[in-house]
Amino acid sequence: MKTLLIVSHPNLIDSGSQQYFLSSIKNREDVTIHHLEGVYPDWNIDVPSEQELLKQHDRILFQFPFYWYSSPPLLKHWQDVVLEEGFAYGTRGKALTGKQFGLVLMIGVQERDYQAGGDEQFTISELTRPFQAMAHKTGMIYLRPFTIFQFAYMEEDQKMDTLIQYWQMLTMENNNSLPTREKWLIEQLKQAQTTLQSNDANTLNYTIELIEENREHIDGLKVVLDQMYHR
Amino acid sequence: MKTLLIVSHPNLIDSGSQQYFLSSIKNREDVTIHHLEGVYPDWNIDVPSEQELLKQHDRILFQFPFYWYSSPPLLKHWQDVVLEEGFAYGTRGKALTGKQFGLVLMIGVQERDYQAGGDEQFTISELTRPFQAMAHKTGMIYLRPFTIFQFAYMEEDQKMDTLIQYWQMLTMENNNSLPTREKWLIEQLKQAQTTLQSNDANTLNYTIELIEENREHIDGLKVVLDQMYHR
Repeated sequence: MKTLLIVSHPNLIDSGSQQYFLSSIKNREDVTIHHLEGVYPDWNIDVPSEQELLKQHDRILFQFPFYWYSSPPLLKHWQDVVLEEGFAYGTRGKALTGKQFGLVLMIGVQERDYQAGGDEQFTISELTRPFQAMAHKTGMIYLRPFTIFQFAYMEEDQKMDTLIQYWQMLTMENNNSLPTREKWLIEQLKQAQTTLQSNDANTLNYTIELIEENREHIDGLKVVLDQMYHR
Repeated sequence: MKTLLIVSHPNLIDSGSQQYFLSSIKNREDVTIHHLEGVYPDWNIDVPSEQELLKQHDRILFQFPFYWYSSPPLLKHWQDVVLEEGFAYGTRGKALTGKQFGLVLMIGVQERDYQAGGDEQFTISELTRPFQAMAHKTGMIYLRPFTIFQFAYMEEDQKMDTLIQYWQMLTMENNNSLPTREKWLIEQLKQAQTTLQSNDANTLNYTIELIEENREHIDGLKVVLDQMYHR
């Protein structure tokens, strides 16, 4: 699976949280980072090239700071010019059909403010309806969004947890079951092994074996349970 | 009441429907038309001047074509830079509190497509949550939106009806009762009188008298009804 991460931020260099996440996924073959303001400082979007990029990927993500409950202006401009009738929708516009689409939102206020009675009054699900409608119109599967609330105030271990969930949003198959997460973790550990010193690599190797053993153990227990019920 | 009509359209000159509505309200003292792309072709928004303009008006309207379920990029940029903390929200940001806010949306597809099971899947109320949240955050009263679906396909009399509703959205007090609409109509007719030839002016005068007589008649009937019920 190949993921296209379309990042829109008017001031990416100055954003600590954006840098934290983006720097963690450089040089991954399965993720293409595409920062719109960086590629198009003059806003002159190359429509055929953008459409080709979309075609080459299976999962399309929009990552942006959630100002005034919507995307930065350049991302809206990108939608207006790239998602043409005949490409993204309409009788012959099937280029995106079946792909996955998701949002990665950096949000400055607390999660609990996003509900009736809270300061923001509406939930993230309600406020992102325009993107859900876009996914529907273009035939894409809408993923559960990845929302990061008040990243700057997080403790270090919370940040690490969030980072792992971010990697999953980018590269894990769309299924949050335990076996899927195990499989994904083993893949990540195997990739990490290739760049490590021998001692650390041995530790990783041991971790992988342990996860696989646990899985076999769980599978074995399931077989026993099945037999008990069907006796 | 003074209305600020903030129009955002990347190609206003070429839009027949926008021209139809805008040309009908030129030279009205109670409506300020503010076309963002026209005032800021270089996107260099004068924030203090925009904030001053907002302060001077009681009703703020956003008029734009509803592409990808949201506003054109420049209007989003305007929100991001003009609606600052300390002006539009936050402890000391009360400049917009109590003002009225509304949307005027030009929409290219049919109204019935905007519902579950329809081509667009969501209602206009659902898709405009970000603007409702903005009104809430800034303390503005959210008006029922004025939506114009497939204007180009309308018959001439439908267009005229729509135009009158548009004028009401711009200038009538926020109350759709019969007396309010009568009062509003009489005001419009009186204004029109000043620019007409004597014959047409007489016709208008007669119309105004007729509406006022009808109102007195209705009020009289109400008194009779009241007396009957309280006998």
